[in-house]
Amino acid sequence: MFKVDLNCDLGESFGRYRLSEQQEILKYVSSANIACGFHAGDPSVMRETVKLAIENGVKIGAHPGLPDLNGFGRREMKITPQEAYDMVVYQLGALQGFLSTCNETMQHVKPHGALYNMAAKDPALAEAIAQAVYNVSPSLVLFGLAGSELTKAGEKIGLRTAHEVFADRTYQSDGTLTSRSQPDALITDEEQSVLQVIKMVTEGKVTSQQNIEVSLKADTVCIHGDGEHALAFAKYIKETLQKNQITITSMNS
Amino acid sequence: MFKVDLNCDLGESFGRYRLSEQQEILKYVSSANIACGFHAGDPSVMRETVKLAIENGVKIGAHPGLPDLNGFGRREMKITPQEAYDMVVYQLGALQGFLSTCNETMQHVKPHGALYNMAAKDPALAEAIAQAVYNVSPSLVLFGLAGSELTKAGEKIGLRTAHEVFADRTYQSDGTLTSRSQPDALITDEEQSVLQVIKMVTEGKVTSQQNIEVSLKADTVCIHGDGEHALAFAKYIKETLQKNQITITSMNS
Amino acid sequence: MFKVDLNCDLGESFGRYRLSEQQEILKYVSSANIACGFHAGDPSVMRETVKLAIENGVKIGAHPGLPDLNGFGRREMKITPQEAYDMVVYQLGALQGFLSTCNETMQHVKPHGALYNMAAKDPALAEAIAQAVYNVSPSLVLFGLAGSELTKAGEKIGLRTAHEVFADRTYQSDGTLTSRSQPDALITDEEQSVLQVIKMVTEGKVTSQQNIEVSLKADTVCIHGDGEHALAFAKYIKETLQKNQITITSMNS
Amino acid sequence: MFKVDLNCDLGESFGRYRLSEQQEILKYVSSANIACGFHAGDPSVMRETVKLAIENGVKIGAHPGLPDLNGFGRREMKITPQEAYDMVVYQLGALQGFLSTCNETMQHVKPHGALYNMAAKDPALAEAIAQAVYNVSPSLVLFGLAGSELTKAGEKIGLRTAHEVFADRTYQSDGTLTSRSQPDALITDEEQSVLQVIKMVTEGKVTSQQNIEVSLKADTVCIHGDGEHALAFAKYIKETLQKNQITITSMNS
Repeated sequence: MFKVDLNCDLGESFGRYRLSEQQEILKYVSSANIACGFHAGDPSVMRETVKLAIENGVKIGAHPGLPDLNGFGRREMKITPQEAYDMVVYQLGALQGFLSTCNETMQHVKPHGALYNMAAKDPALAEAIAQAVYNVSPSLVLFGLAGSELTKAGEKIGLRTAHEVFADRTYQSDGTLTSRSQPDALITDEEQSVLQVIKMVTEGKVTSQQNIEVSLKADTVCIHGDGEHALAFAKYIKETLQKNQITITSMNS
Repeated sequence: MFKVDLNCDLGESFGRYRLSEQQEILKYVSSANIACGFHAGDPSVMRETVKLAIENGVKIGAHPGLPDLNGFGRREMKITPQEAYDMVVYQLGALQGFLSTCNETMQHVKPHGALYNMAAKDPALAEAIAQAVYNVSPSLVLFGLAGSELTKAGEKIGLRTAHEVFADRTYQSDGTLTSRSQPDALITDEEQSVLQVIKMVTEGKVTSQQNIEVSLKADTVCIHGDGEHALAFAKYIKETLQKNQITITSMNS
Repeated sequence: MFKVDLNCDLGESFGRYRLSEQQEILKYVSSANIACGFHAGDPSVMRETVKLAIENGVKIGAHPGLPDLNGFGRREMKITPQEAYDMVVYQLGALQGFLSTCNETMQHVKPHGALYNMAAKDPALAEAIAQAVYNVSPSLVLFGLAGSELTKAGEKIGLRTAHEVFADRTYQSDGTLTSRSQPDALITDEEQSVLQVIKMVTEGKVTSQQNIEVSLKADTVCIHGDGEHALAFAKYIKETLQKNQITITSMNS
Repeated sequence: MFKVDLNCDLGESFGRYRLSEQQEILKYVSSANIACGFHAGDPSVMRETVKLAIENGVKIGAHPGLPDLNGFGRREMKITPQEAYDMVVYQLGALQGFLSTCNETMQHVKPHGALYNMAAKDPALAEAIAQAVYNVSPSLVLFGLAGSELTKAGEKIGLRTAHEVFADRTYQSDGTLTSRSQPDALITDEEQSVLQVIKMVTEGKVTSQQNIEVSLKADTVCIHGDGEHALAFAKYIKETLQKNQITITSMNS
């Protein structure tokens, strides 16, 4: 019997600016990563999004990012590990504020954008983030790129971690994602996407672009909530996984 | 036997910008209000300030403000009660993040600057703030101007409140502070300042500028941590209150 | 022979956040008010928007706002006249930077949102803004609510002003707009909207909600660029005005 | 007859936050680089600083930085050349706004902090910045690290450039500054500092830490305006250069 978590980013609107996030995505995922006001989101959006996730029975995680609203947290910034620690503690706390008003607890933490990517490669940054999460609450689950420095740092400190895989990205033989600058970085065929996920979940393997079988842990799959086909694909992957006897379930179930 | 809390604002530096706050002030107060990143403060300053307050055995409160760093939260903004609620929840949570990493709990909440002043007069805003504090945690103490709409709203919802008085400000016969636009708004004589506080604490009264005895609750006194004579005055008021058999103690002692 | 300017707000996207502004609106207006990065807009959006306006032969104005991105510059802030002066100079300069790279000059300035509304009523604020515009360049045209303190201040200091009227708003007998809190504030019937504009332009009068003829100067009409029917209405009003022998032309033509 | 420009950063306060900048520094320098609101400075600080520089007869330049107030523009951000172009145009324009109100023109542009350092090494970023400066006004002087990609890009596009040298930093044999992570990065002896500058100005050479004579252009020297000994050192270097027949003069004199 196999199981996997489906997660999506949420709450990335800001003031009058509304992203075309489709709330219906909450029907198809088991975990939601809510922006905390640094790269996106604001206090009112956070309150509304927390409410929505609870109503849909979806587990809530913090999605802390770099303090760069204009760049949507996607531009790398040379921050120190201490700064990373501090901004993660701050953002986790801010989201927990809204959860407290609903008597809810946070399930997980998934860094956003450039912070996620930097933490995947930089051990010092990864350790600072893992320490921040652990110090706020040792029962939180740390989401990071499968096999990255971030999941490694989480495991080392004693956090439960969720190795994240991608349905729509191809992999290299060293287990890393093919860079987006490469023409073959994206999988656009939906069936192929889902087959890759099924293989990752049931066999713990992915076939690299070099046609090699690479071992990989697949605890959670990133699902996109915006874009035209987002909802249709979310529905399709959930149903296909279930047909293949894979249970969709959050990390804390 | 009388007692009173002495509180001061803290953690209002930001990045490279350091206010001339004197940490030694923590020797003389029982409660510290820590800025939460909206009108002042940043994640690193918050971490450092929380640590400092704990080391000095001073109780910690959140000091949420308007989102106006350039105006230091002192410019009134026409926000809705819902927006006030949301920004208070966010900032309380953010500070609690740092307290959680130290296994500490928050004692109180004191709104800052224009938010404090608007909430003193506007019942809808006051109720939204009290509700936010209550929803985050009903055991928090709400600090507000003595006899204001904010303390009223706190009491109504079932929060413990601390009526705040000022040593260096004169009062009107309706119990409000003399406006700073008036020439007689400030008390510059230190002895007179302390005598006013002693009378407020021991008799529950203040003599207005119109020479009328006004009833007033005095649970906590605001002490300034910056400025040239801040430390000397803090030491002086603490010692003089103690000589007059008034115990300096936080709200949660 | 009558003439009028049609103006619309533009460039109010920010980073990844895109407003549903329709660039096609530039076919129907003669003046565009470009956001300057305080309430909306960012340097990249400003560059793109300036280029677009030039390509469409539309005159460019600055649309300075309050420093409140989260509130989209719609929340009143108690700023001093000096602060208003400074933030207008800053934003005018920033937009002029992009115009300079295209060897273009700015035609006009129209304050945004709460800054526009506050300046319509507060003479000190209005004078500070007019002074800022004049000091940056005395050849700029100041756009303000018809008959407001802002146009008055502009005229007093020697600026050319454009009295702005609204197609979709009703008026009171004192010449002010019916407050949005009133049920009859908006005109939803398109024909009635355009008839109101024609009357304002050709007779200098508007019929108030109290059925009284009120004198009014109508130099420019505010056209909305977002919303479902924006484009259709812009096309309709332009064509109908032209059929009624009213020339659509910018203030500097 | 030799000459050199002395420049210092100015206007880096923000709201209530005042840096310990000493305005008296304006007596000793010929050019001032004024912060433009991204890494430091705000509209009111800019107005005041422009006024001060004019009163002291000091030439004014823009000091554009990364949009990172909390990091004071000192943290590298992975921005695109287009983003660099846009943020430089914006900030130049904003400062020019204040200069226009005083009928003054801008002399130069010197990027700040991480933007300065990144542009010294990255040709694409350097070209984007040079292009922005040129497009705003081809008569501006571009200040950059002596012999860097930034001065190279400026010269290539046809801008007048000022090669900047440092009095208090040691150099490597390839003409770059010794990294601050090295123990011998700083020159603390004031006499040695000034001797290094005199040699750079009169001989076009600096002695590297490896004891090799390195050719170097020295058009302008960076003088610090904050810190305890800033004023004393500024006075000392100015007087000593003058005694050595080196005229202190701005680039546009």
